[in-house]
Amino acid sequence: MVLRLSTLFLRTLREDPADADVASHRLLVRAGYIRRAAPGIYSWLPLGLRVLGKVENIIREEMAAIGAQEVHFPALLPREPYEISNRWTEYGENLFRLQDRKGADYLLAPTHEEMFTLLVKDLYSSYKDLPVSLFQIQTKYRDEARPRAGLLRGREFIMKDSYSFDIDDEGLDASYQAHRGAYLRIFERLGLEIVVVSAVSGAMGGSKSEEFLHPMEVGEDTYVRSAGGYAANVEAVTTVVPAEIDYTGAPDARVVDTPDTPTIDTLVNDVNARFPRESGSWTAADTLKNVVLAVTLPTGERRIVVVGVPGDRAVDLKRIEANISSHVGMGGELAVDAATDEDLKKHPGLVKGYIGPGLSVEEPVLGEESATGLLYLVDPRVVSGTSWITGANEPGKHVIGLIAGRDFTWDGTIEAVEVREGDEAPDGSGPLEAARGIEMGHIFQLGRKYAEALGLKVLDKNGKLATVTMGSYGVGVTRAVAALAESHHDDKGIIWPRAVAPADVHVVATGRGAEIFDAAAQLSGELEAAGLEVIYDDRPKVSPGVKFGDAELIGVPTILVVGRGLADGVVEIKDRATGVAENVPVAEAVEYVRRAVQQ
Amino acid sequence: MVLRLSTLFLRTLREDPADADVASHRLLVRAGYIRRAAPGIYSWLPLGLRVLGKVENIIREEMAAIGAQEVHFPALLPREPYEISNRWTEYGENLFRLQDRKGADYLLAPTHEEMFTLLVKDLYSSYKDLPVSLFQIQTKYRDEARPRAGLLRGREFIMKDSYSFDIDDEGLDASYQAHRGAYLRIFERLGLEIVVVSAVSGAMGGSKSEEFLHPMEVGEDTYVRSAGGYAANVEAVTTVVPAEIDYTGAPDARVVDTPDTPTIDTLVNDVNARFPRESGSWTAADTLKNVVLAVTLPTGERRIVVVGVPGDRAVDLKRIEANISSHVGMGGELAVDAATDEDLKKHPGLVKGYIGPGLSVEEPVLGEESATGLLYLVDPRVVSGTSWITGANEPGKHVIGLIAGRDFTWDGTIEAVEVREGDEAPDGSGPLEAARGIEMGHIFQLGRKYAEALGLKVLDKNGKLATVTMGSYGVGVTRAVAALAESHHDDKGIIWPRAVAPADVHVVATGRGAEIFDAAAQLSGELEAAGLEVIYDDRPKVSPGVKFGDAELIGVPTILVVGRGLADGVVEIKDRATGVAENVPVAEAVEYVRRAVQQ
Repeated sequence: MVLRLSTLFLRTLREDPADADVASHRLLVRAGYIRRAAPGIYSWLPLGLRVLGKVENIIREEMAAIGAQEVHFPALLPREPYEISNRWTEYGENLFRLQDRKGADYLLAPTHEEMFTLLVKDLYSSYKDLPVSLFQIQTKYRDEARPRAGLLRGREFIMKDSYSFDIDDEGLDASYQAHRGAYLRIFERLGLEIVVVSAVSGAMGGSKSEEFLHPMEVGEDTYVRSAGGYAANVEAVTTVVPAEIDYTGAPDARVVDTPDTPTIDTLVNDVNARFPRESGSWTAADTLKNVVLAVTLPTGERRIVVVGVPGDRAVDLKRIEANISSHVGMGGELAVDAATDEDLKKHPGLVKGYIGPGLSVEEPVLGEESATGLLYLVDPRVVSGTSWITGANEPGKHVIGLIAGRDFTWDGTIEAVEVREGDEAPDGSGPLEAARGIEMGHIFQLGRKYAEALGLKVLDKNGKLATVTMGSYGVGVTRAVAALAESHHDDKGIIWPRAVAPADVHVVATGRGAEIFDAAAQLSGELEAAGLEVIYDDRPKVSPGVKFGDAELIGVPTILVVGRGLADGVVEIKDRATGVAENVPVAEAVEYVRRAVQQ
Repeated sequence: MVLRLSTLFLRTLREDPADADVASHRLLVRAGYIRRAAPGIYSWLPLGLRVLGKVENIIREEMAAIGAQEVHFPALLPREPYEISNRWTEYGENLFRLQDRKGADYLLAPTHEEMFTLLVKDLYSSYKDLPVSLFQIQTKYRDEARPRAGLLRGREFIMKDSYSFDIDDEGLDASYQAHRGAYLRIFERLGLEIVVVSAVSGAMGGSKSEEFLHPMEVGEDTYVRSAGGYAANVEAVTTVVPAEIDYTGAPDARVVDTPDTPTIDTLVNDVNARFPRESGSWTAADTLKNVVLAVTLPTGERRIVVVGVPGDRAVDLKRIEANISSHVGMGGELAVDAATDEDLKKHPGLVKGYIGPGLSVEEPVLGEESATGLLYLVDPRVVSGTSWITGANEPGKHVIGLIAGRDFTWDGTIEAVEVREGDEAPDGSGPLEAARGIEMGHIFQLGRKYAEALGLKVLDKNGKLATVTMGSYGVGVTRAVAALAESHHDDKGIIWPRAVAPADVHVVATGRGAEIFDAAAQLSGELEAAGLEVIYDDRPKVSPGVKFGDAELIGVPTILVVGRGLADGVVEIKDRATGVAENVPVAEAVEYVRRAVQQ
């Protein structure tokens, strides 16, 4: 059916919406695709629903192509399964929780690992039933602290989520690779540039995971890549661990007076001046900076942690957030901040400006045997035998030549510092470059975490119960619509890739003569009869300028103008992306558009 | 793609689920279409999703055919619009309410009048923009007190809801009739018998409304119809109001002692014995029974109301619930129960067993001038001049010959008593018959209620602001799937109408020979190539009996069995509905099935 603008439920806006901070949000609202209903919650208007449907169908086809079967779960779910997996707690404030009239707890699901696990448990009982991959395209909820950027980070959004179930690790790897391939084809068909990067599993749990990032200045994820092919979310970059050093015969550490050295710079200057090195100078890289952090758990509990890092590197709180869950024994949404003075006061062993690790030459104050009882983690560069200048846990005193593994221990290592452009890639494939992107997809080898928690076991070949191993895989569907608008627009409006455009051709009738409108209506009908989707701007009293503006704002790839040229038997056909316009004889117009669509 | 049962995510069940109280629920679960996730909340498995998709598409096509445009609203909505319309309160406990992390109130929408009104207000400004009809197929929420019957009354369910916007009443009527026609076509195409009945508007507000009921013994709605074409939900049946009677010269009412007459029967016997009528006998129809009721408002408030009805008719609480909102000044979910002794105690003017209306011969205790201040409503049969035997508001006393309009007044009339089979239809089209059904659709002429509340005005022809008039229209989509299974099954399983069946043909390979499985696979491929949807039971080690049982349980209209007959070059093709089976030469099988599908 030809969509006539005289009746289509659409009003374009000249002004940007006040709350729109990115181009896709501005344009999708102005061009009449979506409308805000509440913060981070949007309604879909007719044209938007068309684009959304096309994105969904591409995803559906590629899922079917790898044998995944479509199901559909409720959004409103009972608490119990999420209680068992601990995510009822771990999701913290990001979870919408509610009670029914009887006071039973429910949630609006942000993702469905638990429910798929239970469903497969319900239906399957043997290794012969596996592998199976199930997916749904479904509305999800997440109570974002700061919903922003329109559809890019919403609170109600559509995801395609799938889950694979295998009897062994090889099976999981095959299911994972199948999804990885399907995702690459999906984004290719959508026309969305993608970088696949290593990622941390975060709240989801599991071993291996990769993100499909769309490079975008307004993206919230920073990733790095090397010319040699390494690519990772900055949260997942692992430090190249130096070799351990034999410290036999190394001199004893010595505590020195270092008054007025509150910063790494002043400390380095002071020790170079008063305690010079045998050869060369001390640098910030020789110092061990001990940073006190506060980790807020999903339960609201605030836990103090001390992290020791080389003094020449800044602490990266996001990298710590992404990697600290195993150290605090809780997954989910962990927020890490610098400790406040108030936090420090509760731990008198922490001497601000002079904090050191647990010291064997003094009374141990940190680490496993620490008097303060605080967790002490170090950067992976702190390996046995490395020698450090660091705080002596006394006001005005530092210690020089403190040997890791001899003079102090630690509770664990953590990726805690910034990754810098120019750092060597962990796989030795060259120096790293950084860029920003937005997460369009994420695939996880979950392993047996959920199956174990919820008791999903099947009989194996030997007739014994074996726990199933799982993968989980997500694509942001509404987010994909926004990312497409974000990466395909100019200052006049959206420029949809053909695969997802709300129509193939946008016919504009300009002028007042009935013959123009008759010809435009006729052409629209013929284009539709040729199997094309047509928007026809038949509004009688709207100026050509407004019509052209709307056509460019809406962003259908081909614009066909029926106007003055009609007297000479031609129409103008314009490519929205290139701006190239051609006069085409009326009789050839349909074929011209048809060819343009097929290109 | 041929659905092979060896890999399809499906396990049929031999046992009925313990919580299933109706056939559709039992069969949809046993045949692997749906699965319970929580009370009244279901997951859709692959076959169920197929059926659901077909139902949705039929609805979508018929909506498009009347020019309705599809949009999609969020399920999670802010409180404010529903506060303005008063439905935040009126929905009572049926509404799922929640708060976000900032403490802002949200709801899971049961229906979207407010949001559509605001959207049209947002986009449109002139009568030239109208009429417009918008619809969505969307997940809705309702916290039912007693979710039951599987998908027939769920708490998370899919509805098609549409809304029409017109400048005047004629326009509204045209939009209403267009939807009415579309609904008839939808149910016709689905294969669902429908009776359209007059209905009360209830929580929705507005003037005219009709329900599309599917006749069904397990349905929750009772409706009546006459041979002459009258049909109404029993809640909406209006009583034929008798003519007023001239009471000039009628004798005065007299108070009489009637000890030990706690019931209508004992009262009638007593007055016939001691105060005989001039001609004939007193009957229960001559008595006015005053019933004390408690109306629980959505706010939780309990309000006492007295209703006077002829003594020969039982009070019908559901009819009162459906019609009382205008009397208590609040729409929404009103629960009406008999008053308790405790309620009565709070109103000493109410003498149990001897309650009368406000009496002019005594102190008035009820009605507008009532000392008790209670609302007094009467059945429409109580018109001016009618004479009644009723309570005298004193223990052991009744009054005879109390004339309505002369001796007592009332605050309003209400449909309060049972409709009986054999009662005359209100339009005189003959006696009524009663049946039960389930509401599959409901259409409302809302009028200006929501537009006024939310300020939806457009400029009219004279350049003046005019309030838009609206209709709202709903079809239960998930409920339709259940109703189809409920009305199309036998003791072996479901018998899907072709339009919604999960496949056109179910191929069963029986036996162990490779040639049988090869031939069945070949035929399945050919059937698919002929444009048919195919389920193929290729399970190698499953007995023919189990396979036949599963085929009949699943309910695809045509079952094709490849088995022993193959040696003779034939397959068996069976019609699931009639049970008629024919041996058909292999070479003709595809064409045979194709013809069966087209019938």
